[in-house]
Amino acid sequence: MLPPPENFTPQIGTVLQVLSIVGIFVFAASGALAAARLRQTLVTFAFFALVTGVGGGTVRDLLIDAPVFWVHDATPAITCMAAALLVWITPRSFWSDRALDWLDAVGLAAFAVFGAAKAMSFGIPPFVAAIMGVVTGCVGGIMRDLLAGEPSILLRPELYVTAAVVSSGSFVLLRWGGLDVPIASVIAVLLGFLLRALAIWRGWGLPVYRGIRRE
Amino acid sequence: MLPPPENFTPQIGTVLQVLSIVGIFVFAASGALAAARLRQTLVTFAFFALVTGVGGGTVRDLLIDAPVFWVHDATPAITCMAAALLVWITPRSFWSDRALDWLDAVGLAAFAVFGAAKAMSFGIPPFVAAIMGVVTGCVGGIMRDLLAGEPSILLRPELYVTAAVVSSGSFVLLRWGGLDVPIASVIAVLLGFLLRALAIWRGWGLPVYRGIRRE
Amino acid sequence: MLPPPENFTPQIGTVLQVLSIVGIFVFAASGALAAARLRQTLVTFAFFALVTGVGGGTVRDLLIDAPVFWVHDATPAITCMAAALLVWITPRSFWSDRALDWLDAVGLAAFAVFGAAKAMSFGIPPFVAAIMGVVTGCVGGIMRDLLAGEPSILLRPELYVTAAVVSSGSFVLLRWGGLDVPIASVIAVLLGFLLRALAIWRGWGLPVYRGIRRE
Repeated sequence: MLPPPENFTPQIGTVLQVLSIVGIFVFAASGALAAARLRQTLVTFAFFALVTGVGGGTVRDLLIDAPVFWVHDATPAITCMAAALLVWITPRSFWSDRALDWLDAVGLAAFAVFGAAKAMSFGIPPFVAAIMGVVTGCVGGIMRDLLAGEPSILLRPELYVTAAVVSSGSFVLLRWGGLDVPIASVIAVLLGFLLRALAIWRGWGLPVYRGIRRE
Repeated sequence: MLPPPENFTPQIGTVLQVLSIVGIFVFAASGALAAARLRQTLVTFAFFALVTGVGGGTVRDLLIDAPVFWVHDATPAITCMAAALLVWITPRSFWSDRALDWLDAVGLAAFAVFGAAKAMSFGIPPFVAAIMGVVTGCVGGIMRDLLAGEPSILLRPELYVTAAVVSSGSFVLLRWGGLDVPIASVIAVLLGFLLRALAIWRGWGLPVYRGIRRE
Repeated sequence: MLPPPENFTPQIGTVLQVLSIVGIFVFAASGALAAARLRQTLVTFAFFALVTGVGGGTVRDLLIDAPVFWVHDATPAITCMAAALLVWITPRSFWSDRALDWLDAVGLAAFAVFGAAKAMSFGIPPFVAAIMGVVTGCVGGIMRDLLAGEPSILLRPELYVTAAVVSSGSFVLLRWGGLDVPIASVIAVLLGFLLRALAIWRGWGLPVYRGIRRE
């Protein structure tokens, strides 16, 4: 509906742009590692890397009717291929699960804030913009798990989607409260990252449903 | 291609609009209940509710190149969150499977007719518009089952997708035959609902494939 | 962004258009056969046929912001229904797995070239256009396998996605090198088809990931 705002990139800021490429690379690597666990070929590595790296942003762009970010600019797709190749040629022990969790936590928080900021700049109402941030952060990983036939990150007990909710939601609230994009971004990325850090360190999770039953 | 018609909402009529919100709520609740069966957190309840409640209409809108209905108006998303919260705080026994089946049957028929009507008002040819009705009615539930790792509604023997085909197809035929939108809608919703009712009551299903083999 | 080029269809050429309808029919039949293996109803046959036959092209069109090819023209959807009906009424033995593999190989190579050609005609950069060809060729089959709960073609050891990569990539390279669309198309379809033929005949596959580990 609305034309894409001219000043979208400056609004978002260079820091978020850099974090976004880092996020694409990390998510793509996590996709390639899922292919490695399944003992796949390099072509499948590339496919998984692409789906995981750009899947969330693709769904966001389709929903808000923005041009899909990696279709008119080859950089994100090349970033995903580079991640797939790197995972292919390096020893598996190079990729410690713990280190990946930390990088993934940075990518998750950055994607969530970036997605919410992009949606707001397209005139999407705040509540829906916050959802777009969560979609940006989580949908790539959900697609990776569906394709790999692994249990979805959606269904894991520790905080993951919630960290995206916190980053995305706090960004929208801070912007609503009048903060500038750079300051709101930094605070929101840190809040989501800290929550995810507590989940990694301490195994924090939300309470699960038990219902109110006699059994 | 075509600009969205100005008079889309009046054409569809208030009754279908109300049924559509009821359908979103019921489908969202069925998504939240799938999360409850998996003993998930409130955040996952909300995610499942959103995907199930708006998934079908989202795919329809993307296919017919309409603005995605819940992105520029927060009401449907808030409806899904309300359904998730209600399922979370009420005892499981409150949600009888049978009662849900009936509400779901209303939502399915209403979504199918609404989807076909919206597609026709965007100038989509009748045969494809009927498919869009089926997509609107069934895709949310298919996504819910994929995410939850449950057997898809697509693959259940009893009539489900067929009821959507009947509602959507009869609406398109009645409109083609010259009936007004309100009358065609009521008849088409009732036909699909009745067929689904027979499936719930009597376990009606279509014949399954056996092939023509010697065994 | 770019308006659809007026001369898109002539550019692609009649041969590719015919191959594309053949590809839709063959992929739709493979979807219906998946439904037959699951002993489903005719409605499910039709759903699987549609998803498999038009799924890849749909995702491509959404990504490159083209009108979804089967929404404004009912021919592809009717082709899919015809394939579903044909599979339903013919004996299972009529559909030899081997014959299907060969038809599927033609469809895969034609879809990959067609998808890359369409993306290039919409001004998509070459690297991304090659990816769009792979998406066009493979995503329908991936969706079919997800819905049917079968192991994905993505994860099979023999060359499949790679054949799409070869067809799509060679088309983009040949066009880049200055060849006309008809000549580039024929060469690219043949290259991908030959590779897939070697996979069917000889069981050729890419090396799978082993990592560099001590075990």
